[in-house]
Amino acid sequence: MQQTERPIILVTNDDGITAPGIRSLVEAVRDLGDVVVVAPDAPQSGMGHAITIGHPLRLKKVAIFEGIESWQCSGTPVDCVKLARDKILHRRPDICVSGINHGANHAINILYSGTMSAAMEAAMEGVPSAGFSLLDFALDADFSVAKTVAKQVATKLLEKKLPPNTLLNVNIPKLPKELFKGIKICRQANAHWEEEFDQRTDPHGKDYYWMVGAFVNDDPADDTDVAALEQGYASIVPVQYDLTNYSLKDRLEKEWRSN
Amino acid sequence: MQQTERPIILVTNDDGITAPGIRSLVEAVRDLGDVVVVAPDAPQSGMGHAITIGHPLRLKKVAIFEGIESWQCSGTPVDCVKLARDKILHRRPDICVSGINHGANHAINILYSGTMSAAMEAAMEGVPSAGFSLLDFALDADFSVAKTVAKQVATKLLEKKLPPNTLLNVNIPKLPKELFKGIKICRQANAHWEEEFDQRTDPHGKDYYWMVGAFVNDDPADDTDVAALEQGYASIVPVQYDLTNYSLKDRLEKEWRSN
Repeated sequence: MQQTERPIILVTNDDGITAPGIRSLVEAVRDLGDVVVVAPDAPQSGMGHAITIGHPLRLKKVAIFEGIESWQCSGTPVDCVKLARDKILHRRPDICVSGINHGANHAINILYSGTMSAAMEAAMEGVPSAGFSLLDFALDADFSVAKTVAKQVATKLLEKKLPPNTLLNVNIPKLPKELFKGIKICRQANAHWEEEFDQRTDPHGKDYYWMVGAFVNDDPADDTDVAALEQGYASIVPVQYDLTNYSLKDRLEKEWRSN
Repeated sequence: MQQTERPIILVTNDDGITAPGIRSLVEAVRDLGDVVVVAPDAPQSGMGHAITIGHPLRLKKVAIFEGIESWQCSGTPVDCVKLARDKILHRRPDICVSGINHGANHAINILYSGTMSAAMEAAMEGVPSAGFSLLDFALDADFSVAKTVAKQVATKLLEKKLPPNTLLNVNIPKLPKELFKGIKICRQANAHWEEEFDQRTDPHGKDYYWMVGAFVNDDPADDTDVAALEQGYASIVPVQYDLTNYSLKDRLEKEWRSN
């Protein structure tokens, strides 16, 4: 019996399995291999690299993408990737693609993003992976440019792989096809959130807080993901999860020894 | 009226405000400045850099550390740091220390750790910060070595600050004072989790899964945090949150252009 040659493509996201973005991603990559979807059963935006430790997880097979094996999971995006490998695929997928996120995950937003953490988890398990985000929160956002980019990047992942311990953070501007300029390899912009909390009082007289705030780009350079997106490009940041700052390591080795 | 010269030290963690580890950290740093504690009201281990978007947050002033202003928060460790700055301190603290975590956050575990994400969030807000973890899960763990290290590192943070966009990941071995060898500046070990899920069936016949698994160090080198801890040192990894892989960026810029 001959083994199939088609690669296994794991698709996940953080907006939940019913989000339009993951449907677009499935459509973008379904011709490239055997797609298996394992995604959260509810929105998990902002979950970062959270995993579920204190309570058990549920998996449920669902039929929402025609001809595609799909599972919804009660956990976080990272849980989805771990469960997919151990309980559904019983092997490493050939690549993992995550998204397409509704909203940007450029600059430091990668750290808060469940979409990107799912891709990072796959990379940590040795799977070439990428996360995709469209700079449009609308439920009826136009994913056509994003789909083209996702297919292009997934094809590259399958062809060329990536070095170990790396992944790609892909953001796509909110632009019609005719204004889209193509892809650009970038670095992560330095930025921060001007944090604020909207303070309210509940009917019982107790205060509560909603997180609000504004994204502030602190990085005027031209080679960042934020700059590329502003110029009409899709940004691709090659990402690593070795967080060591080697120059600071060298400095502290000298400074702290002398004390 | 003269302003106080004492620095403001924000203390947080991910095991929750009643954990022995945060009490040890408060004791370790209380002589160095005016300590304010803002920590989760319940365990938040494994929450990574998660933030709370979909529901509101609660803050409650509590009196559990004598003479120390303390607040418990319904959110994640990152939420605690954001709320502390915007709603409690109304300014940047001078430093932020997080922990002392019950259990290791060495190697790739930094990515799953709420303790380290709290410290990283502080760094993202321009606050010199460090996370501390003791390699002992026991509720009655001996924090005496960890406290000494925490005080030493917090003192350095106050004196020398750190470059922008950096923080420290400090892990302390489970050793009595007489066997402890001191601190060592390290890089993050490359490692992975051999993931497994313990599959069970509930009384209604439906499956559920508990995340289990084993930490595997893939990095035989001598300069990693894992190696230092095995040798009896406390490991200090200087950490950055610019995740760009610059060498891969250069490579992709060449390779992807030619296609």
